[in-house]
Amino acid sequence: MHAIILSIGDELVLGQTIDTNSAYLSAQLAQRGITTLYHQTVGDDMPSTRDALLQAAGRAPLILITGGLGPTEDDLTRQAMGEAMGVPLVLDEQSLRDIQDYFAKRGRPMADRNRIQAMHPQNSHMIPNTCGTAPGIVAELAGSRIYAMPGVPREMIAMFQHNVVPDLQAMLAARPADAASTHTTEIYTFGWGESTVAEHLADLMPRDCNPTVGTTVSGGIVAIRVRSQFANPVEAQRQLDAAVADIDQRLGPIVFGRDDDTLQDALIALLRQRGQTLATAESCTGGLLGAMLTEVPGSSSVYQGGWITYANETKMRELGIEAALLEQHGAVSPQVVGTMAQNALAQSTADYALTITGIAGPEGGDPAGGKPVGTVYIALADRADVHIMRLQFPSDPPSRTTRQLIRNRSARSAMQMLRLHLLAAPLEHIHWGKLHQHI
Amino acid sequence: MHAIILSIGDELVLGQTIDTNSAYLSAQLAQRGITTLYHQTVGDDMPSTRDALLQAAGRAPLILITGGLGPTEDDLTRQAMGEAMGVPLVLDEQSLRDIQDYFAKRGRPMADRNRIQAMHPQNSHMIPNTCGTAPGIVAELAGSRIYAMPGVPREMIAMFQHNVVPDLQAMLAARPADAASTHTTEIYTFGWGESTVAEHLADLMPRDCNPTVGTTVSGGIVAIRVRSQFANPVEAQRQLDAAVADIDQRLGPIVFGRDDDTLQDALIALLRQRGQTLATAESCTGGLLGAMLTEVPGSSSVYQGGWITYANETKMRELGIEAALLEQHGAVSPQVVGTMAQNALAQSTADYALTITGIAGPEGGDPAGGKPVGTVYIALADRADVHIMRLQFPSDPPSRTTRQLIRNRSARSAMQMLRLHLLAAPLEHIHWGKLHQHI
Repeated sequence: MHAIILSIGDELVLGQTIDTNSAYLSAQLAQRGITTLYHQTVGDDMPSTRDALLQAAGRAPLILITGGLGPTEDDLTRQAMGEAMGVPLVLDEQSLRDIQDYFAKRGRPMADRNRIQAMHPQNSHMIPNTCGTAPGIVAELAGSRIYAMPGVPREMIAMFQHNVVPDLQAMLAARPADAASTHTTEIYTFGWGESTVAEHLADLMPRDCNPTVGTTVSGGIVAIRVRSQFANPVEAQRQLDAAVADIDQRLGPIVFGRDDDTLQDALIALLRQRGQTLATAESCTGGLLGAMLTEVPGSSSVYQGGWITYANETKMRELGIEAALLEQHGAVSPQVVGTMAQNALAQSTADYALTITGIAGPEGGDPAGGKPVGTVYIALADRADVHIMRLQFPSDPPSRTTRQLIRNRSARSAMQMLRLHLLAAPLEHIHWGKLHQHI
Repeated sequence: MHAIILSIGDELVLGQTIDTNSAYLSAQLAQRGITTLYHQTVGDDMPSTRDALLQAAGRAPLILITGGLGPTEDDLTRQAMGEAMGVPLVLDEQSLRDIQDYFAKRGRPMADRNRIQAMHPQNSHMIPNTCGTAPGIVAELAGSRIYAMPGVPREMIAMFQHNVVPDLQAMLAARPADAASTHTTEIYTFGWGESTVAEHLADLMPRDCNPTVGTTVSGGIVAIRVRSQFANPVEAQRQLDAAVADIDQRLGPIVFGRDDDTLQDALIALLRQRGQTLATAESCTGGLLGAMLTEVPGSSSVYQGGWITYANETKMRELGIEAALLEQHGAVSPQVVGTMAQNALAQSTADYALTITGIAGPEGGDPAGGKPVGTVYIALADRADVHIMRLQFPSDPPSRTTRQLIRNRSARSAMQMLRLHLLAAPLEHIHWGKLHQHI
């Protein structure tokens, strides 16, 4: 089955907001074997919205729209749907009561302009909104089923999951028996560049293979997309599983997860299995490693916390780094990062300490001294040993984006370093790093 | 002038990657008064790409394409351009030498398949890539100037800035004198909900106003878009400036910046002006506040660092929080967050300490005890006083997304709390917070 996704909003075509809704919906559809033909984004403008809808209608059995359902004059999706369908808007009494209730519960009067949110094109139906005021609309046009949902991601996701997904399941179940089943998954790796991953999978990647295999890279994470399409759903799943097993085997321990997994999920799960704990001390990442680890609900059972030793003064005072060491080697050095890890471990009761120092830029590089922007040291200490890795990240162009790239990949490299260590895999799997054997 | 933006990639229509390129380009165009008619995203598929291009050609004088210029069989943008233009691909010798040089410099042989990256449609030109292997392409079709750029954001941005922007400036300068000038800006606020902001600007927001004023919200930040369109560019700028001054005056200290500014930029700049410093201690945000502050290059002059006291053990050991206090009031309490702030300040040499504890969920809420998921306490200590605020964020639906929302807004609320304090503005401007007068 095919789908088209439309997103509506001036903030999107002005580039002030990144459209995350279309990606979310595409991923949800792909999981269910529904292929997105295209995304289109238009501004808060009636003719543009109407034309985008007319162009999509009939081209796919499913059209998902986000945005333009609010109460303001900017919100024109329902009017555009009415125009495309050639019908007037009518009032839905139940929706009006729901919106009045929403305001009453919050002790606020309903503004007159919210009344428009209870209007919908004749011959369409409203979808209740469980966490906001804008109800959705479901309509039919030129053989396409159209769902219009709010643009606020939280409200859209709730409506999609509660109201649209059950309809999709019914639509998929009603398809002819010989329709092709598409099963997809994504395998995540961290440590190798995209071209190295692609070299290991070269014979699986021609476009006429089934399952098809492709790679993409984002934030240093190389994702391998696998898509298996067969008439028989059991066969589609079997072929998908076989391809995944093959890829896992070729890439080894750099694979950390699939689909919704993150690197922090994989690391936290591994530590939890072993009943072990972790402390951190961060300089150039300034808390980003801690922030990533604590994205995982329940991470408190393995992550104790630690230090953000951004200033040298804080390194000295809180982690006992001696001024002489900082002066002799600089804060960005194997000596300092290793001592930070040893002292962090000694001060805590954790099984492991991970520490990071580096030059995230744009300023502060010392190319002559062998430490350009993008030079980062990570240390991993356990009660027996300290492993130190020097990493070199691209520093071009010197910008805030590059600064973020260096910080992000540093935090992820630290997590993968500990993960590889726990798996007894060589730390050299992190290709942009180089191990120091001794401090 | 109008533009259309196309993005190409299976990873985009499969929802595995969020399209940040289109938003980046739209914002860059909007800054220069160029209006984006629409974004369209299609998969790595020759007919879809060709059709999207044919549909766009002639509808706007400028078409920007990202993606599909890599060396793999997935990358079909140049072939689709050739098909749309009805011309064959030809080899560009200079580009071939550039690509060979790129690999030679890295001591790697150029794979045969990279040769395709030196091909372009007849009658088009190549754009050199300064930070990757994929050159861009500039072509003309049906009166539209088409720029095809790589999909990797870093490479795309470098090429856009170095090669496309100068062309755009020339195109804009060549327009007839009576063409309308559009000047836009965005004003950022944090502390009030979108509807409250909109109420304060209601008379500026009808769609037929010029300048037009609209609002959007993301991560708790309500942005006010202002767009001024007049034949005379001086008048367009004057009217924009007047609208901005009016809005700034109506909204007061919740306005923290414009366009590329972040809340952390505003806070760091204010501290730097005053020559003051900050330390942090974070529980539920786990380092996120530190990570946000250190996004700002040069933040080390005002941000000393601090503690990630995620486990209670760490709160006790590193910040001297007594077990009895934790037992009596719980870690999420005004007493604990206030003591954290006092002790963090006492242990550091900073002028201010900001501390956060809370329940980010999905588990761990205690609605019966008055502490549902979404309950967060923030304390701000200086050498004279401790201010404590209780914040209540939405906890529905219980999910990882809601967890991230709570953590993000907590970190931002802490920054806005200190910023308001520095401006001697009432902390009650943070509408989801309630001040505790005493511990």
